[in-house]
Amino acid sequence: MTVTQDMLDCYPGELANRQVLATAIDACYECAQACSACADACLSEESVADLVRCIGIDLDCRDVCVATGGVLVRQSAADDNLTAAVLAACITACSTCADECESHADMHEHCRICAEACRRCQQACRALLTELA
Amino acid sequence: MTVTQDMLDCYPGELANRQVLATAIDACYECAQACSACADACLSEESVADLVRCIGIDLDCRDVCVATGGVLVRQSAADDNLTAAVLAACITACSTCADECESHADMHEHCRICAEACRRCQQACRALLTELA
Amino acid sequence: MTVTQDMLDCYPGELANRQVLATAIDACYECAQACSACADACLSEESVADLVRCIGIDLDCRDVCVATGGVLVRQSAADDNLTAAVLAACITACSTCADECESHADMHEHCRICAEACRRCQQACRALLTELA
Amino acid sequence: MTVTQDMLDCYPGELANRQVLATAIDACYECAQACSACADACLSEESVADLVRCIGIDLDCRDVCVATGGVLVRQSAADDNLTAAVLAACITACSTCADECESHADMHEHCRICAEACRRCQQACRALLTELA
Repeated sequence: MTVTQDMLDCYPGELANRQVLATAIDACYECAQACSACADACLSEESVADLVRCIGIDLDCRDVCVATGGVLVRQSAADDNLTAAVLAACITACSTCADECESHADMHEHCRICAEACRRCQQACRALLTELA
Repeated sequence: MTVTQDMLDCYPGELANRQVLATAIDACYECAQACSACADACLSEESVADLVRCIGIDLDCRDVCVATGGVLVRQSAADDNLTAAVLAACITACSTCADECESHADMHEHCRICAEACRRCQQACRALLTELA
Repeated sequence: MTVTQDMLDCYPGELANRQVLATAIDACYECAQACSACADACLSEESVADLVRCIGIDLDCRDVCVATGGVLVRQSAADDNLTAAVLAACITACSTCADECESHADMHEHCRICAEACRRCQQACRALLTELA
Repeated sequence: MTVTQDMLDCYPGELANRQVLATAIDACYECAQACSACADACLSEESVADLVRCIGIDLDCRDVCVATGGVLVRQSAADDNLTAAVLAACITACSTCADECESHADMHEHCRICAEACRRCQQACRALLTELA
């Protein structure tokens, strides 16, 4: 989102890794949105009973991405240890959700799109975690 | 976000107002992100003591936008009455936050950007609310 | 929760309606928890395909209750107009979810418990809204 | 909350560690509520400029606790690997927030109460993480 970069550009304090940070924040919001939409699309499928695990993992991944996006935006009190722990959880959530969605991506276009958003978020969080180390 | 439109395009059920809905969902996420970033930028200003009301309203507006985005994405069980009530709350939250941020937008670029995101979300939610009526 | 009352007791500013406020905050958290659990229990039922609307409304109500709880806790910048709009949305969400859950409360104990939590939250939010008016 | 135990008691599937799980879920909600209230109380203090780090960490910990509570409630698709990663992040967030709040708990009663809620949540999440291993 343009607003993420614009906000980081006028941030009153110093910021390391401005571009990697912006990419990770946007990836978290995009993934949260993809997971919410995938869970809801699964609920609308006739085969919903076969998609129960996908729905649950989608909702888990959405919750974790919303929290991670919230923590990453909050740079005034950024704590590298806390940020690293949250990024690690987000990488695991995105990886788990991508694996699940990929397993039936050929049957459901929403799972294919969701898996791709999860992989982008997983990579963006890993890139930021590498910078922190 | 591209992902919002892509997900609505492959939604298994029928959807009225697809374009107006996509615009409102994206506006909620953008506004949530702008409000989070503005609250944090305010916390980083030396004049933080003068920005306490702005921080609180930013955080309120963020919470309401996250909830509204969540409800709007969930089309499998969409209830017009519930959706309308949430849109009304979001319009009020965005309008209140835009008023607050505009009142010191000339001093803080982050408040100017946040106010604009709030106005966009207010208008997108109003457009969707009009369609529901 | 004891912590809600304890926190309000040591709040640095003035607070009107301290007891009604504490009851509403706790009811929002309880209802959010009940709705999350009911959605998940529905996903675990063999008859999940018949419970799709219940799951969606549960998730909507949870999102709205989390946002409402967040706004109510934030008294430093409380804006009566914004608070009233959010309470109105929460009352509608809780009422809609209670109606849905009550309609099959005789078949699913989790829906019965969830409906009761929704009614308590609906009443607590209405009591607070009355104080604001 | 009574509702947590009641909901787990009528869960349609099998559940390991029912009591440890209920304690962790309630601790996450309590900690989220304490952190939200502490951040807001800090914003109401005259010395708000000295409490900027506390506010930011409070908000981080609240976001992580809300996500963790959401994941723990969702047992229909529980993934031990994902749950463990989220618990680890929550333990770090609670520990960081408790350390921060304890450092000025003698000056602010809300920080003392918040630190205690964070420690309870840290311990409850660790107990559950131990069961998963």
